[in-house]
Amino acid sequence: MINQDDLRVESLGECLFASPLNFASAAHSEESYFRCEDDRVRMTVRFRTGADDADSLSFEEAGPRKKVYFDPAQSTAAIVTCGGLSPGLNNVVRSIFHEASENYGIKRVLGIRNGYLGLNPQSGLAPIEITREFVEPIDKIGGTVLGSSRGPQDPAVMADFLQSHNINMLFCLGGDGTQRGAHKLSEELLRRNAPIAVIGIPKTIDNDVPFVRLSFGFTTALEKAAEVIRGAHVEARDAINGISVVKLMGRHAGFIAAGASVVSQEVDFTLVPEVPFPLEGDGGLLHSLERRMRDRGHAVIVVAEGAGQHLFQSTEQRRDHSGNLLHEDIGHFLRQRIAEHFAERELPVSIKYIDPSYHIRSVPANVYDRYLCDQMARHAVHAAMAGKTDAMIGFEHHHYIHVPIPATSKIAKQMEVTGDLWRAVLEATSQPRW
Amino acid sequence: MINQDDLRVESLGECLFASPLNFASAAHSEESYFRCEDDRVRMTVRFRTGADDADSLSFEEAGPRKKVYFDPAQSTAAIVTCGGLSPGLNNVVRSIFHEASENYGIKRVLGIRNGYLGLNPQSGLAPIEITREFVEPIDKIGGTVLGSSRGPQDPAVMADFLQSHNINMLFCLGGDGTQRGAHKLSEELLRRNAPIAVIGIPKTIDNDVPFVRLSFGFTTALEKAAEVIRGAHVEARDAINGISVVKLMGRHAGFIAAGASVVSQEVDFTLVPEVPFPLEGDGGLLHSLERRMRDRGHAVIVVAEGAGQHLFQSTEQRRDHSGNLLHEDIGHFLRQRIAEHFAERELPVSIKYIDPSYHIRSVPANVYDRYLCDQMARHAVHAAMAGKTDAMIGFEHHHYIHVPIPATSKIAKQMEVTGDLWRAVLEATSQPRW
Amino acid sequence: MINQDDLRVESLGECLFASPLNFASAAHSEESYFRCEDDRVRMTVRFRTGADDADSLSFEEAGPRKKVYFDPAQSTAAIVTCGGLSPGLNNVVRSIFHEASENYGIKRVLGIRNGYLGLNPQSGLAPIEITREFVEPIDKIGGTVLGSSRGPQDPAVMADFLQSHNINMLFCLGGDGTQRGAHKLSEELLRRNAPIAVIGIPKTIDNDVPFVRLSFGFTTALEKAAEVIRGAHVEARDAINGISVVKLMGRHAGFIAAGASVVSQEVDFTLVPEVPFPLEGDGGLLHSLERRMRDRGHAVIVVAEGAGQHLFQSTEQRRDHSGNLLHEDIGHFLRQRIAEHFAERELPVSIKYIDPSYHIRSVPANVYDRYLCDQMARHAVHAAMAGKTDAMIGFEHHHYIHVPIPATSKIAKQMEVTGDLWRAVLEATSQPRW
Amino acid sequence: MINQDDLRVESLGECLFASPLNFASAAHSEESYFRCEDDRVRMTVRFRTGADDADSLSFEEAGPRKKVYFDPAQSTAAIVTCGGLSPGLNNVVRSIFHEASENYGIKRVLGIRNGYLGLNPQSGLAPIEITREFVEPIDKIGGTVLGSSRGPQDPAVMADFLQSHNINMLFCLGGDGTQRGAHKLSEELLRRNAPIAVIGIPKTIDNDVPFVRLSFGFTTALEKAAEVIRGAHVEARDAINGISVVKLMGRHAGFIAAGASVVSQEVDFTLVPEVPFPLEGDGGLLHSLERRMRDRGHAVIVVAEGAGQHLFQSTEQRRDHSGNLLHEDIGHFLRQRIAEHFAERELPVSIKYIDPSYHIRSVPANVYDRYLCDQMARHAVHAAMAGKTDAMIGFEHHHYIHVPIPATSKIAKQMEVTGDLWRAVLEATSQPRW
Repeated sequence: MINQDDLRVESLGECLFASPLNFASAAHSEESYFRCEDDRVRMTVRFRTGADDADSLSFEEAGPRKKVYFDPAQSTAAIVTCGGLSPGLNNVVRSIFHEASENYGIKRVLGIRNGYLGLNPQSGLAPIEITREFVEPIDKIGGTVLGSSRGPQDPAVMADFLQSHNINMLFCLGGDGTQRGAHKLSEELLRRNAPIAVIGIPKTIDNDVPFVRLSFGFTTALEKAAEVIRGAHVEARDAINGISVVKLMGRHAGFIAAGASVVSQEVDFTLVPEVPFPLEGDGGLLHSLERRMRDRGHAVIVVAEGAGQHLFQSTEQRRDHSGNLLHEDIGHFLRQRIAEHFAERELPVSIKYIDPSYHIRSVPANVYDRYLCDQMARHAVHAAMAGKTDAMIGFEHHHYIHVPIPATSKIAKQMEVTGDLWRAVLEATSQPRW
Repeated sequence: MINQDDLRVESLGECLFASPLNFASAAHSEESYFRCEDDRVRMTVRFRTGADDADSLSFEEAGPRKKVYFDPAQSTAAIVTCGGLSPGLNNVVRSIFHEASENYGIKRVLGIRNGYLGLNPQSGLAPIEITREFVEPIDKIGGTVLGSSRGPQDPAVMADFLQSHNINMLFCLGGDGTQRGAHKLSEELLRRNAPIAVIGIPKTIDNDVPFVRLSFGFTTALEKAAEVIRGAHVEARDAINGISVVKLMGRHAGFIAAGASVVSQEVDFTLVPEVPFPLEGDGGLLHSLERRMRDRGHAVIVVAEGAGQHLFQSTEQRRDHSGNLLHEDIGHFLRQRIAEHFAERELPVSIKYIDPSYHIRSVPANVYDRYLCDQMARHAVHAAMAGKTDAMIGFEHHHYIHVPIPATSKIAKQMEVTGDLWRAVLEATSQPRW
Repeated sequence: MINQDDLRVESLGECLFASPLNFASAAHSEESYFRCEDDRVRMTVRFRTGADDADSLSFEEAGPRKKVYFDPAQSTAAIVTCGGLSPGLNNVVRSIFHEASENYGIKRVLGIRNGYLGLNPQSGLAPIEITREFVEPIDKIGGTVLGSSRGPQDPAVMADFLQSHNINMLFCLGGDGTQRGAHKLSEELLRRNAPIAVIGIPKTIDNDVPFVRLSFGFTTALEKAAEVIRGAHVEARDAINGISVVKLMGRHAGFIAAGASVVSQEVDFTLVPEVPFPLEGDGGLLHSLERRMRDRGHAVIVVAEGAGQHLFQSTEQRRDHSGNLLHEDIGHFLRQRIAEHFAERELPVSIKYIDPSYHIRSVPANVYDRYLCDQMARHAVHAAMAGKTDAMIGFEHHHYIHVPIPATSKIAKQMEVTGDLWRAVLEATSQPRW
Repeated sequence: MINQDDLRVESLGECLFASPLNFASAAHSEESYFRCEDDRVRMTVRFRTGADDADSLSFEEAGPRKKVYFDPAQSTAAIVTCGGLSPGLNNVVRSIFHEASENYGIKRVLGIRNGYLGLNPQSGLAPIEITREFVEPIDKIGGTVLGSSRGPQDPAVMADFLQSHNINMLFCLGGDGTQRGAHKLSEELLRRNAPIAVIGIPKTIDNDVPFVRLSFGFTTALEKAAEVIRGAHVEARDAINGISVVKLMGRHAGFIAAGASVVSQEVDFTLVPEVPFPLEGDGGLLHSLERRMRDRGHAVIVVAEGAGQHLFQSTEQRRDHSGNLLHEDIGHFLRQRIAEHFAERELPVSIKYIDPSYHIRSVPANVYDRYLCDQMARHAVHAAMAGKTDAMIGFEHHHYIHVPIPATSKIAKQMEVTGDLWRAVLEATSQPRW
């Protein structure tokens, strides 16, 4: 359970410099664009008349502050991109540079190479000095121009690096592991009384970071996943008794599988980690699939990589010679079981198995994500300039918010099985209500 | 000013039939998917600590009801698409059909041809009987398979048509004019005590219908507009002293121009109806543009079709022989004035003028809009089945809501000049704060 | 070896009807658009001065004839699509319908369902009556609206079907197996003296049908393959010691792998069936890859599914319990050997394996293929109307030609290892000249 | 008339250096990849049996030579891009760099800025030193990274520039004006006995440079034009009596209008410069359009910008106050006449006018053009290295050739009105055979 105290954002100290941002115009006072610490965003917007309004939690709203903690002309910012690729990383890098350098006038923006590894001098990876020319074309290409890597580094080593390079603020783009690393680094820096802001920007193609309604890259992933599903539907429809099985990303959360199913409206069964399904027996997947094939002659199954893991736990016999559990790949497992099932019933089917993962995550961001990336980036710079630290930019109800990083590890974000998205899946597919 | 009474939704009467929808599963009670009249969504989510929480307004939440007003097996639904094209119309038609026919079991779904005109027997346009085969491919093509037209029809004539065809619910896809027509039709039907539900689905590529945070088609329009801006930027950058002027849709609201500018991050001046700008003089557009050209050698200007209308009011001399006001086209006007300005200064510039309007609105919906379309459609069917009428489906804070149609005409939705979107434009461009 | 006699096209008999096509205009005699039997296209266009012009072979040029064999008003045409999907099938169906029905006035066009199976009454698959409405949207969707299947049917059964349905001409879209089937059917019909034209339209996403420079679907496949390679390059570049292995279609011919490598210009090693490569040892793939990794830190390998089969022949030990040869999948095999190789050298690498096959072949046709499809279709109708049979439409030097189907089985089309395409691959990659 | 002498390519002198290119492999002699002066490509491939083979003309085949004229280690290459944008310019720049620098080992490759203007020192535009990093991302973005400009410069000034910068070979990307400039520069350099190769690479989005079957950028333009036509068709179809008029590029040649019409298969009238059409009267465009509207209720007209110019010659009255000929814009003119025509007949129509020119030419190249660009670029480098000069790379019958630049000005390439492309247009549209 989260309570309001968990949502209090860490600060480096008092803001003494006037913001160099200028929003004043003839028509409007600049006040309207600045945010202060009292501006807040409610955590929930739905309520039931008459029920106790139990949830009165709220977040600090993100946005530029009138007073800032750092003197831009004396400041250096750094950006690091960690973990697997997600569409939009370069857009975030580009907008951080523009906001920091051109709007705030920060004198130097560095790109840390290959994730947290680049904050370890032993890697031999020197930071890149980011310029206008450097960022100009990068939003047209996928991936991250800074390179990436997985895994943590020693917080003390990273803190040393930041201090030795006179870096005043670090922007950490990454998923939950990256944010945990950012938190440990923040703690280390606070312990040292080092006035260095650490701001997280959530990067999760699976959309599974809490307090981020839609993470950048997610709708681009949906777009690509829906293209793949379209092809899978064509393959199934045009064959005799065609069945297409599409495996999509989503180890702990089925947002991509569910969202892409709703978008494509051509899926018959959507399988996600949040909804265990029976494979065998009446009402099981195989039986339902068989009925579907007899009714319509083809079917499309979308399965998140983390779905159906309960099917492996009891299958003791499925071990290789070394005793390793086999067939944890739900996609291959389903393909095989479906083939066996219809072979037993002497109903010949044509199964196509499609696993597009890398293709989906290395493309440039689509229009929606480009907007998100820009705003995530600029709000991150505002937060750092205001002296926030150990904080991540969140996004709820179309508003950007400050989230204390420790709060993000108190909740495992999954798709609500009783929520709107899963209902949309049930409405779009003909699948049983397991 | 809107008050809570304005947000009360009209109803045809008591719901006596059990919903045929079945969400019950082993794991979850079906209760969780149904909504009741007490489920509500707050209108605002931002607040300032200590300030009076002035706005306690809330909307009825959309969603399926456990009891429904119509007996599906005895019911006929009809769909009408009105006004200019917007990406996603066919997706809405397709999902209305699927929800109505396959999920609720409504026996007949008709497609009214060419807008409200098709509800006038004098047009000779007979409705289409919509089938599964008919809707199968339509989400891959732009436009509306039902055809469209502009302008109202006599509410009495339309009411006669609905009654004579035994239509129980009508879904009206269109902008403010269409919703006004839907309201008049609802009034006429209520006056007649005719148990026919009229449900509006907002269709506005300009995103200017109130209580609809993002209307379907809007982000697709942004995507196409951003492509055009990308080309315009290339043209400007690669010429000697290149200037590109892109005119985008937006007669009363600059959402497309502003949004596309943020998405593309390559725009130097964004001109919208909500922000009047001085053309001449110090700090005027021409002067700022000149400075930009001397600094960087090229510039991109995005102008909403409704921007800068103040520039025409005082120019009495600009009338043709018949006395008609000339040059109301801000795009052509700007192109001409920019050419004159630089000619006077003997600074040769290469101006490219680009007006992509029709291209933007006739494409199929992108992934985000496909999601919106599906949910708008299904919630419209839920609303009609629950006996709601004179109501439009709205979308706020990621939740779908019921909006009384009369309430939508009490507010003219424009971009907030002191809001997040315009700040994002100011952050992305180097333009003056007019 | 092919000789000129092999290129003589079979004919049903004398053409007695005047063509209903009208090309006459004020400016030009219609003669210019009609082709006669004496119009020919040379097989080769390159020569070396002084060398004997050994190759004087030529093809009959395709095109409308002034006199036609069938009376359109009394004729029925049928279309069948066989084998795996290739982008553009629906475009061919659409243009055959338009040319046959609207231009020639053929009274009925039937769509045979699910390949040659639909020509066997035991399948229970009745033909579809194709109409203008039916074909209207189909070019926007992938696959084949007629459905497909693999494998032959008894020529006598198919001939019975055509005769019993009064079909006068059959258009067979498919690869070499399909054309073999078309040839056997032609023979059977000629044996029966049945005046039914059988015209083949080559469909091969691998581009491996002889006398067809570029088959429809091929450049669309290149486009999709190049997108995948772009992503693979991003993945490799942004990881530490990243290696991406992309498996593409091409069982006997490496056109897709080679073409996509040239198009993307981001590939380091292209492996095709036509060029055996050493895996181990100095100058072998693994060694070359290792050098590439030490030089640049990342690499992209594109492998056609039929490449490197020589690597399996000697690996006797790689059999499963039933004695089946294992690891014939060159993609998985390479991934594993690369991983082992670098593990042995203690050089940690990050390998991504990508196999996009189904995604590539189920998309709608791109612009180039849409052109090809249209012309293939219309020339097929011209050929059938002229009483040609046992003939396939070919495409050489930008001209459409008539190819006797038996001639196509005399040559196995592969990429010339000493030709322009492979030179382009060698120029684009840094790979050894194996 | 062209004769064989016109096709003799100018040479700087004897090739004394061995080519650094290495194609030798275990399987094949490197001979197979090299071309010699005796390798030729026929100009025509169609013939009529029995007719005199009048055309025995042939071109020198492009390709690498075993001996080269320049010592790469001592050589500097330069690239200049001129005139309007066309998709693929950056791809050509990239492949020239890779072939010259990495394959031949040329020590320096310069990018001339903003067309021929950058060869005039008075412009103050210094050349860019092209590197691997510089070209890495440029094929993903449209336009030309070198910038462009229109118009000629003094050949003597340009020759001085090349000599003073020790440039040994210049690659000129541009249309007929640019090639004329390249020819004058070649003449000047030959006059000076300066051993500098000038190689033209044809860039014409209109596809109107002779001896180039398909110029790069052209099929990309078709792709974008076909997208626009698709939208135009949607607009026309979904309105009541909708007419869409699409103006496409093509001042002297209608290749884009014709090709896009065939590709889209949704056009009713295609108007090109090569085919004058009557506007008024029986059989005129307006009358035919009217019949089409009464038959089907909507129509799409595609008009090349150079079409219908004959309609303006006799309209003396259409002059403005200064005496300038008005309404030379065929698109606007048609829109107006169509509106008037239907107004007179009291048949209300809804006309949409669409002019997408800039959008079409500033996008990145599609897959087909990327292939062409790469090969054009590499063959240009081969030609320069072989000491060819005053020569342009051509493309006929899928082979790349050397074309003396003066020969290109002897022919005005237009679409053959009696050729395959126009027949394809007539087959696809229902338009009269004017």
